[in-house]
Amino acid sequence: MRLPAHGSNPEHLFSALGMDSPAEIIDFSVNINPLGAPAAIKHHWESWLKEIADYPDPSASELKEAISTHDGVPASHVLAGNGASELITLIARYLHGKKVLIVHPTFSEYESACSNENCTILHHIVHPPNWQLDKEALQHKIKVVDAVFFCHPNNPAGVQYDSSAIDWLIDGCERSKTLLIIDEAFYDFASSPVTSIQKAGDFSSLLVLRSLTKMYSIAGLRLGYLAGSPELLARIQKSQPQWSLNAIALKAGTLCLNDSGHSEQARSYMEAERARLLSYLSDRGFLHSPSAVNFYLFKDPSLDDQETLFLFLLRKGLVLRHTYNFPGLHGTWLRAAVKRETENNRLMEALFEWKQGN
Amino acid sequence: MRLPAHGSNPEHLFSALGMDSPAEIIDFSVNINPLGAPAAIKHHWESWLKEIADYPDPSASELKEAISTHDGVPASHVLAGNGASELITLIARYLHGKKVLIVHPTFSEYESACSNENCTILHHIVHPPNWQLDKEALQHKIKVVDAVFFCHPNNPAGVQYDSSAIDWLIDGCERSKTLLIIDEAFYDFASSPVTSIQKAGDFSSLLVLRSLTKMYSIAGLRLGYLAGSPELLARIQKSQPQWSLNAIALKAGTLCLNDSGHSEQARSYMEAERARLLSYLSDRGFLHSPSAVNFYLFKDPSLDDQETLFLFLLRKGLVLRHTYNFPGLHGTWLRAAVKRETENNRLMEALFEWKQGN
Repeated sequence: MRLPAHGSNPEHLFSALGMDSPAEIIDFSVNINPLGAPAAIKHHWESWLKEIADYPDPSASELKEAISTHDGVPASHVLAGNGASELITLIARYLHGKKVLIVHPTFSEYESACSNENCTILHHIVHPPNWQLDKEALQHKIKVVDAVFFCHPNNPAGVQYDSSAIDWLIDGCERSKTLLIIDEAFYDFASSPVTSIQKAGDFSSLLVLRSLTKMYSIAGLRLGYLAGSPELLARIQKSQPQWSLNAIALKAGTLCLNDSGHSEQARSYMEAERARLLSYLSDRGFLHSPSAVNFYLFKDPSLDDQETLFLFLLRKGLVLRHTYNFPGLHGTWLRAAVKRETENNRLMEALFEWKQGN
Repeated sequence: MRLPAHGSNPEHLFSALGMDSPAEIIDFSVNINPLGAPAAIKHHWESWLKEIADYPDPSASELKEAISTHDGVPASHVLAGNGASELITLIARYLHGKKVLIVHPTFSEYESACSNENCTILHHIVHPPNWQLDKEALQHKIKVVDAVFFCHPNNPAGVQYDSSAIDWLIDGCERSKTLLIIDEAFYDFASSPVTSIQKAGDFSSLLVLRSLTKMYSIAGLRLGYLAGSPELLARIQKSQPQWSLNAIALKAGTLCLNDSGHSEQARSYMEAERARLLSYLSDRGFLHSPSAVNFYLFKDPSLDDQETLFLFLLRKGLVLRHTYNFPGLHGTWLRAAVKRETENNRLMEALFEWKQGN
């Protein structure tokens, strides 16, 4: 099937498939907090207009203080970026020409950024249904590469590993002097988040990447950060443009991190809604990944390639994320975001209909 | 004198010098339109709140259409960036390890970005009082380098060359296959702007850089663009992170470019106010550069190093830009922005006082 690599532009998807856009579209392909941005952003928005005239603080000191308090790490262990994607580009730049292991299936940006920097890419694929890491094979690969990208909880399956597995990975990388980049873009959607951020400054080979755009629904503003040792961060920052973070992102990010109520509310909503969705899927004979976060993989086990189900849902205006370009998945699963209750109901009704007709 | 490299953070400057901050500070070191942002931004600000939730359009197509109309270039000849500083970083990345000529005195970012990419840096210095290019020496250097950075009108002197001189430079670079980057960050403050942007797509070795943050007073939002051939832009864009431009910058930039009245008003204000200031300086025995834009160099010719005058003004809360780190100037001039009438009056009064005491 000729599909755009990302599903994140529904209009583009319909036009690429030569389909008319339905009157109403629900986009399940974007993994953003369905509860939206903290209300405090709306309250402060007008007062931020005056921020646009001056150059933003290049040291992002107010934001770094908020990160420091939020995550219990010193501000000197933090590098802020113009979205996690800028930080991935900077890490790839730092890794120019090196050998990099990517634990798949995962977010495609690690590989595209590293390929662009002439890195040699190795894959380690974790497989459904249990998504286990296969420590023996992984250990061998860690020793022969310069860096490992590991998304945790992983995207697209939403699997969260227990702390001991993550610590095993951190220790193994530290022993081999292999740089480990743990991308925790979705960690705070888990009911009991597992994070390695406080270790990042103490291990010389560990970077923890965070995004503020998912939980706080501010993808338009671009904001992410990286935790690691000051020496490592200084080397990575070398290629960052001056004033890379805009003034509104700095203000919004600081506000969001100081508003712990918002993420707590999202976690609690997510726990109940995810459980409701996943048990519905099981009850109706679908398989799903054991997701801990705000998206999940599912499939109709009677199909290998999920194309017909993908198109069935698309015709109803329900846009899922296909998995053709996720190594290890090859279109055999679909990814869906946990959205608002009424939106999730629409998906459940459509899946009920699908089952009745198949 | 131990001064911060940029004067753009007055508080930092006072503290670095161990001086108390005066109650009122006027910052003449930042070259931003004193008339501020277009009023239309304020009118639209509330409606832009909804833009923060979604990922910004990575192709920046609406903005590129506005640039296309504004500058009379095809949208395919444009690459938008997260501020001109991101584009300078991307150009430097493209020039990794090459030999680069920088026409000085000029904006320091070209050299710092290129040094960071292990480029070999050559200088060509233009000298006061006539700031002529010395074509013979320049021609020789163009032939032995891979790229030339040329700021036009130049920063810090504000000198605008005539079209024939610029065309000579473009032709010379094209013949030697030397990449010429003309930074036109301030071109639109000149009463009769000289621009090369429409040539950028036709010459394979020409890039024209623009900033929207000076004329439209939106430095906090970060926005610039680059014009050139689509092939060259594609190679430069390779290292640009996904979604590098934030959604508010995209909206504001489109609005600004469609509001031709704002820049016309600024040009007309600038013409009168610049003339008033420069003739005052001449009348009081100061020397100044023949600036065509919104900032100028000046000096008390009885001093070589302008340090005492810089400190005299600083104590009155008037923050100038020193020139210690501009190759070719070594602190022998001060740079001032043309600001609002009442602010410029304060500077003129202080200079009158200085002359009376010296």
